[in-house]
Amino acid sequence: MKIALAQLNFLVGDFTGNTRKIIDSISRAKELSADLVVFPELSVCGYPPRDFLEFDDFIKKSEDAVRTIARECTGIAAIVGAPTPNPAEKGKPLYNSAFFLAGGRIMDVIHKTLLPNYDVFDEYRYFEPNRLPYKTIEHGGSRIALTICEDLWNLADDPLYVRNPMEELIKSAPDFIINIAASPFHYGQDKHRKEVLARNAETYGIPVFYVNSVGAQTELIFDGGSMVVTADGRVTTQLKFFEEDLLTYDTETPPVAQLIRTPPAIALIHDALVLGIRDYFGKMGFRKAILGLSGGIDSALTLVLATRALGPEHVLPVLLPSRFSSAHSIDDSVELCKNLGIRYEMISIESAFETLGSSLNPLFSKMPPDITEENLQARIRAVILMALSNKFGYILLNTSNKSEAAVGYGTLYGDMCGGLSVLGDVYKTGVYELSRYINSKGVVIPEQILTKPPSAELRPGQQDSDSLPEYGILDQILELYIEHRKGPSELMDMGYDENLVRRILRLVNTSEYKRYQTPPILRVSPKAFGMGRRLPIVGRYLS
Amino acid sequence: MKIALAQLNFLVGDFTGNTRKIIDSISRAKELSADLVVFPELSVCGYPPRDFLEFDDFIKKSEDAVRTIARECTGIAAIVGAPTPNPAEKGKPLYNSAFFLAGGRIMDVIHKTLLPNYDVFDEYRYFEPNRLPYKTIEHGGSRIALTICEDLWNLADDPLYVRNPMEELIKSAPDFIINIAASPFHYGQDKHRKEVLARNAETYGIPVFYVNSVGAQTELIFDGGSMVVTADGRVTTQLKFFEEDLLTYDTETPPVAQLIRTPPAIALIHDALVLGIRDYFGKMGFRKAILGLSGGIDSALTLVLATRALGPEHVLPVLLPSRFSSAHSIDDSVELCKNLGIRYEMISIESAFETLGSSLNPLFSKMPPDITEENLQARIRAVILMALSNKFGYILLNTSNKSEAAVGYGTLYGDMCGGLSVLGDVYKTGVYELSRYINSKGVVIPEQILTKPPSAELRPGQQDSDSLPEYGILDQILELYIEHRKGPSELMDMGYDENLVRRILRLVNTSEYKRYQTPPILRVSPKAFGMGRRLPIVGRYLS
Repeated sequence: MKIALAQLNFLVGDFTGNTRKIIDSISRAKELSADLVVFPELSVCGYPPRDFLEFDDFIKKSEDAVRTIARECTGIAAIVGAPTPNPAEKGKPLYNSAFFLAGGRIMDVIHKTLLPNYDVFDEYRYFEPNRLPYKTIEHGGSRIALTICEDLWNLADDPLYVRNPMEELIKSAPDFIINIAASPFHYGQDKHRKEVLARNAETYGIPVFYVNSVGAQTELIFDGGSMVVTADGRVTTQLKFFEEDLLTYDTETPPVAQLIRTPPAIALIHDALVLGIRDYFGKMGFRKAILGLSGGIDSALTLVLATRALGPEHVLPVLLPSRFSSAHSIDDSVELCKNLGIRYEMISIESAFETLGSSLNPLFSKMPPDITEENLQARIRAVILMALSNKFGYILLNTSNKSEAAVGYGTLYGDMCGGLSVLGDVYKTGVYELSRYINSKGVVIPEQILTKPPSAELRPGQQDSDSLPEYGILDQILELYIEHRKGPSELMDMGYDENLVRRILRLVNTSEYKRYQTPPILRVSPKAFGMGRRLPIVGRYLS
Repeated sequence: MKIALAQLNFLVGDFTGNTRKIIDSISRAKELSADLVVFPELSVCGYPPRDFLEFDDFIKKSEDAVRTIARECTGIAAIVGAPTPNPAEKGKPLYNSAFFLAGGRIMDVIHKTLLPNYDVFDEYRYFEPNRLPYKTIEHGGSRIALTICEDLWNLADDPLYVRNPMEELIKSAPDFIINIAASPFHYGQDKHRKEVLARNAETYGIPVFYVNSVGAQTELIFDGGSMVVTADGRVTTQLKFFEEDLLTYDTETPPVAQLIRTPPAIALIHDALVLGIRDYFGKMGFRKAILGLSGGIDSALTLVLATRALGPEHVLPVLLPSRFSSAHSIDDSVELCKNLGIRYEMISIESAFETLGSSLNPLFSKMPPDITEENLQARIRAVILMALSNKFGYILLNTSNKSEAAVGYGTLYGDMCGGLSVLGDVYKTGVYELSRYINSKGVVIPEQILTKPPSAELRPGQQDSDSLPEYGILDQILELYIEHRKGPSELMDMGYDENLVRRILRLVNTSEYKRYQTPPILRVSPKAFGMGRRLPIVGRYLS
């Protein structure tokens, strides 16, 4: 059988656009003489549809789209994903389903059994797990075990579910497994997927055809990388990362096997962030980005990524110097813009800082300057950037990194503003790594930006290290606490200083109120701030 | 048997404080000769603990606390709620459990079966549903069917679960049901609870003892209102709303039955908001609030509620007039402050508006004023308020209402700032209703604030009705769309104008990016913006 894997970039709720894309790929697969074309999970409505699933109108539109697509399935079969109403009296009102379309109509529907409900996933919020008997699908003389994403995941090391649908499906002696997925990127995910899919192939002794979504939906970046795993557990075919792709695989005459490995994490993160920016703008109908360029590494890297995502002509960096800005900050920023070949603007915040200071003076009387005056500068910058955004239709990019977001080293309504946070899931040490990766292919970011000590430049001679531990050690502890959920005693057992651990954990936990109001953050790690990490604002734990 | 219902206000993660409160109530119940004292769901760690549940350290601290409490249970039994590890190899790592403590030790543990995972609830994220055989608990010659919150809820009209634990428990012929709960307030919830609990009492022919939490945890306001429902389904005893309370009920000599009805919704909403503010500040360790007083009804109402929650001496209203502020706005604000007996401050935004205008002028060149200049005023106000907040330790209260939040009629990083949104779940029409309710007990809010047409006063002669439909009709459509999930065709079938419906739904759906960055909103309706309503920012549906 010739199977086409159609890895597409959908837009949530865009039934017209998604249907057109699917039908185009069906035509394309027909031209390639495929017997079956497979699309990702919830392809018809886009993933994740979130609470749109609670609207009857949304479900009805999705059902209509599936019927429209089915009519195109003559001379070829297709598998698409869509929500379906649960006809039972009890239980959640929907299933997360896969439709088998052939002969111009819906031939079969199967429902997802294992519903991820952790990190960024909320599938129990909407869906009932499948409770119907399992059956394979017969097509072109083959028996197909059709599964949806997490359905194959209970063979992982830490089984989250008491059931395993493949244990039932294997009883019908399927010839291969098809898995339709919407599995978002993080730097370790492709490797993990390959392990889990290989374990399934080996355990059940049949090949696995895995079709993933591609494209970003706000914070989630679907990386594609769809693949075929042979019955002996080897990944021999893989589709592109971060791009739409369509590939056919003939089970009778499989391609010459070549073992495919995961690209380096830093390259994946780079490409993920570029796609994340591009899709946020493209799918929201925006073209132009603005950002404040401080002379530091975070805004420099954000600018480079933005120009790669949107084109240099669509990105406006603005220098917003104050009395505390060093000369090199301006020089370095200008050099960066020159390297990128883009125009910049410069607006001093001095007069606004003075005027607002005078307005506040009667109330502040003779109180000494403190964090107030530092935040004031950051907020004036935000006011100027947002005014330009409003006047010209730019979207403000946030340039904060994950280390800052973690410990609350940033000004709410100041440098924490923006429509999208590009680096909010990249620790400061990762920001350096990513910048060096970019420069390794030709210097773009001036070397002095990479070597000078980080500073917010909000008071004379300020350096990040005045307020924070060195980023090397800070990032280690943050990653162990945030990504790996290590508590204080575990961290101390690993040799970290008790006072340092307590201080950092307290900073993280008492900054929850700030993170609540920050823009969506492009997710590239297994545990990003945002929808995947839900902590109380009001609480008294490690704080 | 003499049962004490202990309705307490816990703080998430405060094991020391929560344990002390529980032990104090055990002593108190002993003094009242109770045989059993019952505490709410997850009382030991507070509800909702959210992702703190993913930390082994958190679970360990909770287990220690249960053992400490157990040692106090001599001469009396107690029921407390806490998470427990799931010892099975597969499934989620935790149960949501109820401990039966007696004789100084843990006598029994039961686990919650029905795990709410909708609206503000995420229990499948953490917990495995009970799969163990059901058993009643024997104490003092009675058999108790011990259940946890949602466990009784499958008798509602729309059963969300395929199981019903009471169907199993009733086989052991229990004498009564105990239900420990953490059920957050909305204006219809007490009535709904009474119906569901009555249906359980009648269906199984035994009384129900219901113990709810009280107190706010950021956006969720637990209203208490614990109750006893007799076997014939009548609510004859109810504890206080919005306050801690402890009451004993002797099953041998029940109190004289008197039917208890739910107080009017408007009174409940008022009390909920006051408690919501008070607990946010109290539990975060803050005392003082600041807010911008515009002369409009939203900031006036927020100010009144804040003074009731924190005391008038702890609230600072700031008038921030511009060239567009009308004289009556200032007069009305001053009169309100006089009525409340509080001091206010006034800082003109004119000089900052001019200076920032000059700074921006070279880039704006000769472009005409538009929304940019309106937003600029709102953002300057926020900068001033946040500077006062930083300098003096005030927390900024957000004064936006739900109608504005819904349609995006507000300035991000301007009037949408704040640590807590007081009225973000109250539609504009509800803001008027609540203000009149307050004035009905003696005029506090000047009448002209209630009668003048709403205006943002950001350009000459501006009125809300220039940009928005009349609030009367707007709020109807918003409530049908947001609270009742009616789609466009359903709304048109109800007689609403198609263009109006499409315009309003588009405004709501394209404002998701703004709401993502707003402060937590005190929840008083069945569907508040925030954690209970999760819509994509990037999407193309009704937009």
